[in-house]
Amino acid sequence: MKSFIDVKPDSHFPIQNLPYGVFKLKIGSEPAIGVALGDYIVDLTVLEKKGFFEKTNLGNERVFNRSSLNNFMSKGRQTWRQVRTVLQTALSDENPLLRYDEDLKKIALVPMEDANMCLPVEIGDYSDFYSSKEHATNVGSMFRGKENALMPNWLHLPVAYHGRASSIVISGTEIKRPSGQVKLGNSDSPVFGPTKLLDFELEMGFLIGPGNSIGKPIPVDKAYDHIFGIVLVNDWSARDIQTWEYQPLGPFLAKNFATSISPWVVTMEALEPFRVTGPEQEPEPLQYLKSKGDQAYDIKLEVSLTTQNQKKPFVISKSNFKYLYWNICQQLAHHTINGCNLRTGDLLASGTISGPAKDSYGSMLELTWRGENPIKLPSGEERKFLHDGDTLTISGYCRGDGYRVGFGEVSGKILPAN
Amino acid sequence: MKSFIDVKPDSHFPIQNLPYGVFKLKIGSEPAIGVALGDYIVDLTVLEKKGFFEKTNLGNERVFNRSSLNNFMSKGRQTWRQVRTVLQTALSDENPLLRYDEDLKKIALVPMEDANMCLPVEIGDYSDFYSSKEHATNVGSMFRGKENALMPNWLHLPVAYHGRASSIVISGTEIKRPSGQVKLGNSDSPVFGPTKLLDFELEMGFLIGPGNSIGKPIPVDKAYDHIFGIVLVNDWSARDIQTWEYQPLGPFLAKNFATSISPWVVTMEALEPFRVTGPEQEPEPLQYLKSKGDQAYDIKLEVSLTTQNQKKPFVISKSNFKYLYWNICQQLAHHTINGCNLRTGDLLASGTISGPAKDSYGSMLELTWRGENPIKLPSGEERKFLHDGDTLTISGYCRGDGYRVGFGEVSGKILPAN
Repeated sequence: MKSFIDVKPDSHFPIQNLPYGVFKLKIGSEPAIGVALGDYIVDLTVLEKKGFFEKTNLGNERVFNRSSLNNFMSKGRQTWRQVRTVLQTALSDENPLLRYDEDLKKIALVPMEDANMCLPVEIGDYSDFYSSKEHATNVGSMFRGKENALMPNWLHLPVAYHGRASSIVISGTEIKRPSGQVKLGNSDSPVFGPTKLLDFELEMGFLIGPGNSIGKPIPVDKAYDHIFGIVLVNDWSARDIQTWEYQPLGPFLAKNFATSISPWVVTMEALEPFRVTGPEQEPEPLQYLKSKGDQAYDIKLEVSLTTQNQKKPFVISKSNFKYLYWNICQQLAHHTINGCNLRTGDLLASGTISGPAKDSYGSMLELTWRGENPIKLPSGEERKFLHDGDTLTISGYCRGDGYRVGFGEVSGKILPAN
Repeated sequence: MKSFIDVKPDSHFPIQNLPYGVFKLKIGSEPAIGVALGDYIVDLTVLEKKGFFEKTNLGNERVFNRSSLNNFMSKGRQTWRQVRTVLQTALSDENPLLRYDEDLKKIALVPMEDANMCLPVEIGDYSDFYSSKEHATNVGSMFRGKENALMPNWLHLPVAYHGRASSIVISGTEIKRPSGQVKLGNSDSPVFGPTKLLDFELEMGFLIGPGNSIGKPIPVDKAYDHIFGIVLVNDWSARDIQTWEYQPLGPFLAKNFATSISPWVVTMEALEPFRVTGPEQEPEPLQYLKSKGDQAYDIKLEVSLTTQNQKKPFVISKSNFKYLYWNICQQLAHHTINGCNLRTGDLLASGTISGPAKDSYGSMLELTWRGENPIKLPSGEERKFLHDGDTLTISGYCRGDGYRVGFGEVSGKILPAN
C-alpha cells in the first residue's frame, strides 16, 4: 500500500499508520482532528464536510471538528475500522478522487510545520502500571536487595496506582523543576527545596475507547474492544521527593507535577502487524488474567538527551514495548475486575519499560544505578539525573517491510525551579 | 436570622446554611442548581431568570441552569458571598418580596421529596489525604506495632495519594461488593473472590473553586480563596484486597470500585462561625506549611448502620472534623507546592477521621480492631466488617445557637458480589 503523498521510508507516518491527533494552525484556527501522513496532517474536518465518511457508521454526524478525540473514540472498533478503510482508500496512490483534486488537497493537506499539536484526548482518569519485570526488579534490588527485589504480589497481578490527570501535558511543553520536601542522609528532619534527582520514565500508555459501567468488569478476552490506541508517555519523577513521601500510600508529589504524552495516537489497527508473543508468565495467572494469543507488540523505543553543550541528541537507552510482563489486555481486565468504571479517554500507562540489558533501562535511576555510574556524554558532560536546560526525548516505532509505523516523539525541556 | 420558610431547630438546612446541590424533579426535568432550606430546595434557575443576581458579579450570566456547580465554583469568593447575601435577604422573614409572591414561591420552592439529587460537581481529579493522626496511628499499630505506628514522614507532611474520579457516586447509590485477589493466611498464592473485609471510611472532602496554573503553587495563606465548600465522603475500602495489592505503590482496586459523597456542598461562608483551633503541630511544620489562625472546623460526625434485622439506624461511631492534624489549607498548599495544578471541581478528601476515643474511630477496621472486637447490634447481630444488605450512613453538622449547619448524609447499601 502506498500513498500519492511522498513518504520517506524512515517516516513514522506512512499510509499504514494514520495516527490521530488534534491540531491548530499556527496562524490561528479552531482545534481540528487530523491524521498524520508523511510531513502532512490530513484535516479530517475537511473530508468530513465533503461526505467522505457518510457510508461509515458515522453517517452525517460531525465528530472531527472537535478539540479532542473522545467522541470518535467512543464509537468503537467497527467504526474506527470503517474510517481507516475510507482514509487508506482516499489517500492511496491508486485513487484519483483526492489525488487529482488540487483545490481539495490544498485545504485538506496541512504541512505539519504550519500547525501546533494539542493534547489529543480529554483524559478523565490516568492510571499508571508497573508492568516491566526488569524495572521492578532493578528498583527493588536498589532499595531492598536482590533477594527481595520483587514484592510477593508482583508476579500475580499487574500492580498499578492512580496518577494525576490535570498535569498531563503535550510533548514540547517545558517542565519546571519541582520543589518539595526531601530528607538528606541521616538528618532527622526534612528540608525544602528543588528536587536534585529529577528523572524521566520511559513509558507508553493506551487510551480507552468505549468504557464500562460501574460494577461491570471487562473480561480479559473483551479488553481489546475497549482500546483505541497507544501514545508515548514520559512520567517525570523526582526521586528524592518520592523516597521521602511514598510510604505508605505511594508516589504523589514526586510524580504529579507533570506527565508528558506524544501528540499522535497510533491505533491498534495500525499496530496489528507487529503483535508478538509476550514473556512467559510463571506462575500462571489467575483465570481472570489469562489472555490468549499474541498480546505484546514489537515497538522499538529510544531515549535521547540534549544539553547545553550536547546539541546533537545522544541516545541513552534503547528498549522495547514487548518486554512488558503484563500485557495491555491483562492490565485492563485487572483494572475493572472490582467493578471500577473506565471512561472514554482514560489513560492507562505501562510503567517504566526497562529491557534486560543495561543500556535498555527506562530511567536515569536505573541507567546510572542511583547515580553510581553517571552517563558520559560526547560533549564531556556527565549526568546522574537531569539538569536544568536538558531536553529528554522518547521516540518509538515498529519496523514493517519497507516502512515504519511510528509514534513520533514525546519531548520536554527542563526549566529551573522557581 | 430567620427565614419565612419554617425550619425545624434540628434541621441541617436553616437560612444560615444554604448549601448548593444539583437536582432533578422526579416527574422529569433538566438538572438544575438549588440551595437547601428546611425541607425545600430553592430552585436558583427560577431566581436567576427573575434577575435576583443581576447586581452581583454574575450580572446577566446564567450559571444555575447547569448539571454541575463547576461554573459557579470557578467565580471566586467575592461572587459566592454576593450570591449568599442575595439569597439570605430574599429568603429572610423580614423581606416581603418572595415571601408574599405566591406564584413565584410555587415555582421557586421545590419540596425535597419531589426531587432526586445528582452528583453536584464534575470532579476532574480526586486526591485523598491521610490527615488523622489517630487513624494513621491505629492502622500503623495494627500492622507495624505501636513503636513504629507513624511513618517517619507523617508528622512532616500531609500524606496523600491519588484516588479514582470516575467511580465517585452520589449518596444513595448502591455499592456492589467488589471482587479481587486476596491472599489467605500462609498460603503461597492468592485466590480470587468477593472481598470478605468490606469497610467504610468516614471522611470529608473539600472542593476546589478557582484553580491554579501548572508550575504555580498556591501559598498556604492564599489557600482559603481556592476552597468552595465541603461534603461528606465515604471512601469504601476492601481491606483484604488492599493488604495484598498495596505494596509498593499504594491502594488501587481496594478503593476505586466506589467512593460516595453527600449531595449538598456546604460553603466555607456557612462554616465560618464554627472555626476552632486545630491540634498542636509538633515538630513545627516547614515554612510552606505554616498556616495562621483557626483552620479547623467543629463538625460533629456520626456513623450509623442498619441491617436486615437492625432496621433502626444504630450509631457505631461519633467523631469530629476538628480532630484532623493537617488542616485543609495545609493540604492544599502541600498538594500544589511542586507546581501540580488543581482545577475547579477537584475533590481533596481528608482521609479517615478518627478521634481519640474507641467509639470515635472512622472505619470498621479500627472500631473492631481488625475484627477482634465485633460490634454488637441491638438486633443481636454482630459485625466485624460490612455484610450484604447493610446500609452505612455518615452524617455531620455544626451546632450553632439554636440552629444547625449540617451536611445531610452520605449513605450506601451493600449489594452482593456478581
